[in-house]
Amino acid sequence: MDKKINKYRADFPILEQKVNGEPLVYLDNAATTQKPKQVVQALVDYYYHDNANVHRGVHTLAQRATTAYEATRKKVQKLINAPSEREVVYTKGTTEALNWIVKGYAEKNLAPGDEIVLSYQEHHSNIVPWQEICAKTGAKLVYLELNKRGQVDLADAQKKITAKTKFVSLAQVSNVLGALAPIKELAKLAHAKGALMIVDGAQSVPHIPVDVQELGIDFLAFSGHKLLGPTGTGILWGRLELLEAMDPLDLGGEMIEFVGLKHATFKEVPWKFEGGTQNIAGVIALGKAIDQLQEIGLAEIEAYETELMRYVLPKLQAVPGFELYGSPDPNDHKGIISFNLAGLHPHDTATALDMEGVAIRAGHHCAQPLMKYLGIAASARASFYFYNTKAEADKLVEALKKTREFFK
Amino acid sequence: MDKKINKYRADFPILEQKVNGEPLVYLDNAATTQKPKQVVQALVDYYYHDNANVHRGVHTLAQRATTAYEATRKKVQKLINAPSEREVVYTKGTTEALNWIVKGYAEKNLAPGDEIVLSYQEHHSNIVPWQEICAKTGAKLVYLELNKRGQVDLADAQKKITAKTKFVSLAQVSNVLGALAPIKELAKLAHAKGALMIVDGAQSVPHIPVDVQELGIDFLAFSGHKLLGPTGTGILWGRLELLEAMDPLDLGGEMIEFVGLKHATFKEVPWKFEGGTQNIAGVIALGKAIDQLQEIGLAEIEAYETELMRYVLPKLQAVPGFELYGSPDPNDHKGIISFNLAGLHPHDTATALDMEGVAIRAGHHCAQPLMKYLGIAASARASFYFYNTKAEADKLVEALKKTREFFK
Repeated sequence: MDKKINKYRADFPILEQKVNGEPLVYLDNAATTQKPKQVVQALVDYYYHDNANVHRGVHTLAQRATTAYEATRKKVQKLINAPSEREVVYTKGTTEALNWIVKGYAEKNLAPGDEIVLSYQEHHSNIVPWQEICAKTGAKLVYLELNKRGQVDLADAQKKITAKTKFVSLAQVSNVLGALAPIKELAKLAHAKGALMIVDGAQSVPHIPVDVQELGIDFLAFSGHKLLGPTGTGILWGRLELLEAMDPLDLGGEMIEFVGLKHATFKEVPWKFEGGTQNIAGVIALGKAIDQLQEIGLAEIEAYETELMRYVLPKLQAVPGFELYGSPDPNDHKGIISFNLAGLHPHDTATALDMEGVAIRAGHHCAQPLMKYLGIAASARASFYFYNTKAEADKLVEALKKTREFFK
Repeated sequence: MDKKINKYRADFPILEQKVNGEPLVYLDNAATTQKPKQVVQALVDYYYHDNANVHRGVHTLAQRATTAYEATRKKVQKLINAPSEREVVYTKGTTEALNWIVKGYAEKNLAPGDEIVLSYQEHHSNIVPWQEICAKTGAKLVYLELNKRGQVDLADAQKKITAKTKFVSLAQVSNVLGALAPIKELAKLAHAKGALMIVDGAQSVPHIPVDVQELGIDFLAFSGHKLLGPTGTGILWGRLELLEAMDPLDLGGEMIEFVGLKHATFKEVPWKFEGGTQNIAGVIALGKAIDQLQEIGLAEIEAYETELMRYVLPKLQAVPGFELYGSPDPNDHKGIISFNLAGLHPHDTATALDMEGVAIRAGHHCAQPLMKYLGIAASARASFYFYNTKAEADKLVEALKKTREFFK
């Protein structure tokens, strides 16, 4: 399988550089992925041929820009198997999408005593907006435990998702542990109690096939820049009737139908959410990113990343002092491995690895409640994508051994 | 002056194309400007050499990206002569910046009976967010009249800005009439009554020198994509103590200091506003756009655009059936001319011009209250930038004559 998928690596010129005299090994893909030539070229082509503001113009460039901008909606629809492209809303990223769901929909549907079910693995973007809304509405947060495989625990969910629950909001894949949450089963539990199921797909949509209809979920948020797309792009998907009932947050140009002196009426979904000039070039290039993902195939990407995990995790576990967080089973890691080297601060580990050309992340990974749950202050994190090779995995292992030796 | 400024035109490859068999004449700059090679190359360089998520990483690429991302703040500070780069907040555009001011600051400082002073020339982005907040708080909107030059009327402002006024929020340059509002005097009137002065600089910052300290204003919002920068970029500037008192709207990753299970604390200004991954590439390329604007000089740009207005407006006024909106004096038009051809719908005018390669806009220009104020449903709008030539202005005039002949 290596050869088949590694051929796509040639599309990423950024990977062919040296850092501190060593070939770059980019293992920070959970923070943002690299962009293939096709995506960068889409930006150049747009700015050199078609750049104009969308929807508002009858001239040729505006029409070209509008057609390309709207075409991405269809590509996103197919990527996540949404029933309609009108359910695809452009945002600047997962964080904005989650904030919009919380403030535009959830807030007006919460009352004192209502409960929102999260888990200890959530990213801050799926915690902090809920805290604000709880303070406003009197609703309460309930956190699900994780099982020994680092996954959201279904047994605990069965207890905590109750008639009081109005929303269950969970990351499908943890950005720290790489663990997959049983979203389909959790959505069933939520719906059985009359609650809605919101999914943070930032770390799942780029790595595994995600089918919103098969999962039976109500909202999905994810980022473009974590799946080969430009920075400043993201997607909010929601069931049409929910989006129709949801309030827009960016009020102003292009999202209105009529504006009088005292009040205004809004356009239909999805355009009512897209007030002001959007990241037009970014959205168009995101379409190219999705084209490439589809060409490779998400199932293929998932299989290859699992193969990488099976290859590298045992070798990492053999490094003296290597402390793994989450499941010891490589099959439970969707491209992400968090760890510490005993006695070493993860920032020192990351800095030492950078000297070897290996880029990993260190810190709380925007998941402080999870850090506390794990009983640590911070961790190192190596996160892979389909363009990473087994040779790079070996380099990570070697660099960690060297680091361990150096600090001993 | 032509030769001196027109040399920069070579930096815009998009302008060297034919549309419908005719050389493109791009006169839709108020919607979005074209991007010079330096800006597009900055995107390519970033994605091919430095792409990584900012702030969160110790590895080399993350450090390079963070340095470049933060460097733009200093450039924006100098562009608008802000006292501190910490007062520069990245947004996705003017609309988002205005919404943030309204929802993050104004909302909690409004009570029933308070008044917000706008004008009849405002863009929907400076009307609709205020309408929503008035409905929530019981505050009231008051609209300033325009004088015969299409400018916000100072005499009317003296009457309408009162002790009840809490915010005066105005576009510095109208996106329809191109008229310049007397912001400095209006800010004095506002401050004399204890109100704050908010400025929509979307159509001013790209075209004239804007000095927030000299104007004596409190908040400024503008877009990157209207001043040579990438789509999906914008700036919110505010006085430091106001930004410190303002609530962030995008809650989540990277804008927090501490996140517990029940509550969170935020970072300091400006980072508390920049939750989630920003449009990193866009911000960095925006820095290049500002470099180019500064190289040319905003005073030079303003002088050249005024020269263009003096050249083209009399010729346009000589076209049979040409109906001008706003001032008959070319000196009152900051690059923007709105008009209709008698008996012709502006969409037909714009479509006919597109057949001649001339790109203009037609519609309500996101300013329906102004359209009603002018007693029209829509207008055609030609909007110039420094790369437009007198030859292109002539082509506009000729194409309008031809259109007039054709439809007669």
